[in-house]
Amino acid sequence: MSESVITEPHRISEVRVTPVAFRDLPLLNVVGVHEPFALRAIIEVVTDSGLIGLGETYGDAGHLKRLQLAAAQLVGVDVWNINEIATRIRTALAADSSKAGHGMSGMVTGSSTADRVLSPFEVACLDIQGKAIGRPVSDLLGGAVRDRVEYSAYLFYKWAGHPGQDDDHWGEALNPDQIVDQARRMIAEYGFNAIKLKGGVFAPEEEAEAILALRAAFPDHPLRIDPNGAWSVESSIGVGRKLAGVLEYLEDPTPGIEGMAEVAREVPMPLATNMCVVAFDHVKPAVAQQAVGVILSDHHFWGGLGRSRVLAGICDTFDMGLSMHSNSHLGISLAAMTHLAAATPNLNYACDTHWPWKSADDDVIVPGALNFEQGAVAVPTGPGLGVELDRDALARLHEQYLASGIRERDDTGYMRRFQPDFDPSAPRW
Amino acid sequence: MSESVITEPHRISEVRVTPVAFRDLPLLNVVGVHEPFALRAIIEVVTDSGLIGLGETYGDAGHLKRLQLAAAQLVGVDVWNINEIATRIRTALAADSSKAGHGMSGMVTGSSTADRVLSPFEVACLDIQGKAIGRPVSDLLGGAVRDRVEYSAYLFYKWAGHPGQDDDHWGEALNPDQIVDQARRMIAEYGFNAIKLKGGVFAPEEEAEAILALRAAFPDHPLRIDPNGAWSVESSIGVGRKLAGVLEYLEDPTPGIEGMAEVAREVPMPLATNMCVVAFDHVKPAVAQQAVGVILSDHHFWGGLGRSRVLAGICDTFDMGLSMHSNSHLGISLAAMTHLAAATPNLNYACDTHWPWKSADDDVIVPGALNFEQGAVAVPTGPGLGVELDRDALARLHEQYLASGIRERDDTGYMRRFQPDFDPSAPRW
Repeated sequence: MSESVITEPHRISEVRVTPVAFRDLPLLNVVGVHEPFALRAIIEVVTDSGLIGLGETYGDAGHLKRLQLAAAQLVGVDVWNINEIATRIRTALAADSSKAGHGMSGMVTGSSTADRVLSPFEVACLDIQGKAIGRPVSDLLGGAVRDRVEYSAYLFYKWAGHPGQDDDHWGEALNPDQIVDQARRMIAEYGFNAIKLKGGVFAPEEEAEAILALRAAFPDHPLRIDPNGAWSVESSIGVGRKLAGVLEYLEDPTPGIEGMAEVAREVPMPLATNMCVVAFDHVKPAVAQQAVGVILSDHHFWGGLGRSRVLAGICDTFDMGLSMHSNSHLGISLAAMTHLAAATPNLNYACDTHWPWKSADDDVIVPGALNFEQGAVAVPTGPGLGVELDRDALARLHEQYLASGIRERDDTGYMRRFQPDFDPSAPRW
Repeated sequence: MSESVITEPHRISEVRVTPVAFRDLPLLNVVGVHEPFALRAIIEVVTDSGLIGLGETYGDAGHLKRLQLAAAQLVGVDVWNINEIATRIRTALAADSSKAGHGMSGMVTGSSTADRVLSPFEVACLDIQGKAIGRPVSDLLGGAVRDRVEYSAYLFYKWAGHPGQDDDHWGEALNPDQIVDQARRMIAEYGFNAIKLKGGVFAPEEEAEAILALRAAFPDHPLRIDPNGAWSVESSIGVGRKLAGVLEYLEDPTPGIEGMAEVAREVPMPLATNMCVVAFDHVKPAVAQQAVGVILSDHHFWGGLGRSRVLAGICDTFDMGLSMHSNSHLGISLAAMTHLAAATPNLNYACDTHWPWKSADDDVIVPGALNFEQGAVAVPTGPGLGVELDRDALARLHEQYLASGIRERDDTGYMRRFQPDFDPSAPRW
């Protein structure tokens, strides 16, 4: 037709995978404490047409190895063919006989290796698609239904500073009063309208007291607590009943689909998870057992933005709520999360983000594209993800990675340097 | 970034809805017989940038009214914002107090009105997106995983011709031998590698004989039969057991999720459906009852190509197969079906199509874009859907619509002109 043009494909000519480290604070959780640096990998997909797309993912050694394995298979593929990219990655990983290392950060285990590896390449290809056609990534996901995406204040128990270092600017938070102070500061600075407390650090009764203190201080903010499966079924039911009418959802109180299902039957609020349902394989048994009411999606382990839309459709179809999980992350991830959230009509909770825990000057993108106002990030409207790589910053954070000596996230090992008898097993209470 | 451009939005400036009729043959089914003309509606979405996108859907009066209602709400929307289009359509339909008419063709009832109305507009917007960026629609759906899409030979019992008219070129098919002859002719002409028989016309034993005759004549072709819910649970189990090892799937033997679940427990082959699971609302109870093993998707009632991808993801996640249903259709629908099938990795059966029953000169698209070779259609690689509207043909088929006098598909009413006591109720045997 006369109004149409055939454009050339944008074929991948090079893929760069750069591990980086950025400063992190001593945030406590059920498996230990955050080390002084958090790891990520920055993906650059380059096309023969001269476009560059960005992706961000975990930086652990096993995952890095798989990213490199995948990257080597992608040269020559058209960035519009995500299905082909997924197939090549699955094939490359299936042929990999080395199985060491879970290859990702945090307490998300059992997720699909192929989906974790696919994710940053898919995001980078969507970034390129958007740049090629002059449209934001949200348009490629069905269109933004909101122009700003709400995030939650993600509170952590924490030490005053890393041992042997000065106190950090957030200071100590080891009891309800200090948690309320942390919330006040974070909300004053970012304007968040929902609050999540990372639990699993102290006895459940103590953490429930912190939630009640937050409720008293913030009567209108939806509240959540996430002990990362630290509690027995019995403890979970006890806390759930005690916090009836206080929590908007209770996140991963106890490990496993069966345990969650037992708790779900006995507590009044929905249970949310980013631990027992972290891959498409887990959805069917979780639905059958009515184990969870809310899935915390995360494009980093659900296979990218397109597959996260399928997850959103599943939640809608099976009457489950949808929220969003985060690990420690940089600006490329925040941009991708924001586009996805903007284009997901049934994302009905404020998303998690570790953003406030990161130093503003520790990032790989040019500052200014992503800002929090009243607890929300405006959806970038420029082409692609709408963020630009700062090569000097990338080089600096890569040097930081090399110098850090950290190659796997190890909250437990770091904790044991200071508490040699620390036991990360769960449920603990 | 220097490599990026910001393009203008493509805002909808006009939507045209044109009902058309095309000649159809006296194909028999459980509710009667096809009338001399089948109805469709052709959608043209026009943008302020001068692009035109095409969609095709049912042409029944109730549906046409809703299409017009929706069309009036779409002016000014950016074609990249499918979510906004869906919201506007849902809002417009919710405000419509007239509820008469199920508004769609065939034996697919209970599907979501909003999804049926959304579908052709979504397809037209994807056609425009593809034209605007010079990429085929399959690229907008994640990329083609196959360059040709397999369809099945869709056999029908039929009269020799419409009563009072000459015999048509397919002639009579009222017994197993004539069905085998029909299959031979259709496969000789189109090269299909799978066969589906529309049943529900004669007693189940007779139709099972036709399947066994097809098996004898075509030992390697996967076979299916679809009696459209004409059989009791007991009859369905009897036929299912008799055809063990012969059918690749048994389609809608009996009505309703509960009945299907009863049959599914007792027969060896998967049950397929385009009758008891025709909307996202039906998926959860069907999964809970393990009623179906294969969903026959159909973008015309599942809300378009994007929402059909969600359905595909659901099938993959819940270990269900995925095939594709068709009603009598023209070339715009065939193009959309082919792009969707090409980009759906887990579409693991040859798709249904009524294409062979349509006269080659009855269409609204310029001939040549879509051809069957060895039972498959090559996926168009041009921009958008890859088909072009023939305005003279559109005008001719619209005139045919006006002259036909048909405003609702009514297989039962037409049958009763010749068999006044015909009873369409099901299950019948």
